[in-house]
Amino acid sequence: MIQTMKFAVLGGGSWATAIVKMLLVNQEKVGWYMRNSDAIGFLKIQKHNPNYLTSVTFDTDKLELTDDINTAIEKADILIFAIPSAFLETELQKLTVSLKDKIVFSAIKGIVPESGLIVGEHFHEKYDIPFKNIGVITGPCHAEEVALERLSYLTIACADQEKAQYVADNLASSYIKTKITKDIIGTEYAAMLKNIYAIAAGIAHGLGYGDNFQSVLMSNAIREMKRFTKRIHKIDRNINDSAYLGDLLVTGYSTFSRNRMFGNMIGKGYTVKSAQMEMRMVAEGYYAAESAYKLKATFKKKVKTPIIDAVHAVLYEGKDAKKVFKALTEKLD
Amino acid sequence: MIQTMKFAVLGGGSWATAIVKMLLVNQEKVGWYMRNSDAIGFLKIQKHNPNYLTSVTFDTDKLELTDDINTAIEKADILIFAIPSAFLETELQKLTVSLKDKIVFSAIKGIVPESGLIVGEHFHEKYDIPFKNIGVITGPCHAEEVALERLSYLTIACADQEKAQYVADNLASSYIKTKITKDIIGTEYAAMLKNIYAIAAGIAHGLGYGDNFQSVLMSNAIREMKRFTKRIHKIDRNINDSAYLGDLLVTGYSTFSRNRMFGNMIGKGYTVKSAQMEMRMVAEGYYAAESAYKLKATFKKKVKTPIIDAVHAVLYEGKDAKKVFKALTEKLD
Repeated sequence: MIQTMKFAVLGGGSWATAIVKMLLVNQEKVGWYMRNSDAIGFLKIQKHNPNYLTSVTFDTDKLELTDDINTAIEKADILIFAIPSAFLETELQKLTVSLKDKIVFSAIKGIVPESGLIVGEHFHEKYDIPFKNIGVITGPCHAEEVALERLSYLTIACADQEKAQYVADNLASSYIKTKITKDIIGTEYAAMLKNIYAIAAGIAHGLGYGDNFQSVLMSNAIREMKRFTKRIHKIDRNINDSAYLGDLLVTGYSTFSRNRMFGNMIGKGYTVKSAQMEMRMVAEGYYAAESAYKLKATFKKKVKTPIIDAVHAVLYEGKDAKKVFKALTEKLD
Repeated sequence: MIQTMKFAVLGGGSWATAIVKMLLVNQEKVGWYMRNSDAIGFLKIQKHNPNYLTSVTFDTDKLELTDDINTAIEKADILIFAIPSAFLETELQKLTVSLKDKIVFSAIKGIVPESGLIVGEHFHEKYDIPFKNIGVITGPCHAEEVALERLSYLTIACADQEKAQYVADNLASSYIKTKITKDIIGTEYAAMLKNIYAIAAGIAHGLGYGDNFQSVLMSNAIREMKRFTKRIHKIDRNINDSAYLGDLLVTGYSTFSRNRMFGNMIGKGYTVKSAQMEMRMVAEGYYAAESAYKLKATFKKKVKTPIIDAVHAVLYEGKDAKKVFKALTEKLD
């Protein structure tokens, strides 16, 4: 039996905010680290995050807010990281306390650029966390709909099913349903790959392809995701479960997805650089495309990934999006 | 080797119009039956269908237009039926010529209400057409995007692969890619089931469920479709192929789908009758829900179909949509 354990959420964005909201249904106190001390000051007075999910008001008596990541980690048993993967390692460099004996859950979609690893592997390899203490929280879930308390389903992955269940129970509520799985590798890679496919959907849209093509693209994407995750970690996995297909769809069909928007700008003729500058941020799928492409080159048995290859060609090989996607259409069915 | 064979398209709606447009890329002459002689008169002068896909202009010298279904059938080798399933049998009752030796392709999604059969089975059982002469044309394909010449992928199913290939070759063009399959039963049932799932998506939307739930619903729908089609006809079928998953997505995510609109009105509180009257037509999924529900009751080995059951309960059992969908959410994952 797991004792009562304390949570800390690390991150100040919309997904972190949504996770704190979910936990507070079940927990008396939740630790919450965010880098931005101005945001903490605002939150304490105004009772909501100044920048994300501003409609969500918090009982601040139940929050242990801190701008010191070490304080947050020290006081908690279960850490939920919801920091963009591009900034994760910068944050982890601040650590003076040990992660030993902590249970580390990742709510991050993507690759840590410094190591080229998904978040779970990064914690395992760089911070010596055993896999039984590493977990993944995955959707399909737009944080904005959690704010509105619209029914959403989460999948919680951990090799240790008891820990998965504990986290699942603490996220569940009248509007959040949870299920657990052992497939931390598959869920994390699926969450990463879907951002590449969302970029592909955006590029196609920007180039003028329509809804008929979008559905063919998604149908090919899920088959590609199945092949890819099977090579990474072969287990009995139904790729049409919510954590894989559902997560692909909620992102691939969302016009608000940053990855899709980024792709759309490229399809419309922006250069990769100018699209990134215009968006003032890097879409997670950008790094994912590079990592997935490099990773598949290491597979002993080759795997067909025409969509990843096409996105990589556009983003990293300076190829013309229109030509690349014309060639891609010949490879889909 | 198949000799050059002549096509006739039967139907005056948008999908029939799109199919004629596709065939004319490859055929010198195409027969085209439509019931409405005023529309034929208009088309001959104005060079476009007065009611559907009005932006598509035709070289009328290449059309053999007739309001006599027997004339159209007599002159053709391959018949492509694109008449709404609710009106198919009324049209077939007019036949004086034989369908023997004709190759009959269905571009119809749904159930023939008079027989409760999918179209291919209806032709086989009621008109003695052997399965080798029966085929199915399926998407994912909105006719409106064919009009715009936006890239679309069709799947052509026929037990006789040579005939499937002949039809596929004659529909293909710079903006239409085709593939063939033997799975006429699976593709037809998938096309029918997806309309039920589109009604479910509409009901959910009308009730206020969001994008997170929509993606979970589609993820569950494709698993349900897999189980259902496996019971109907067990063959080696990848349910994530375009003809199944792609077709589900293009309909389930389309705000223009009549089935989704119909469901949406019911979710918003319209009665089934008033929604039908308001739409001035019956959504195909309405009949499909009844047929699929009855059909699964005949399966020797039971199959879990919570979404079909929910839609049936709302449409045919007078159950409250809000309550039914609340119960449904407990069955999805």
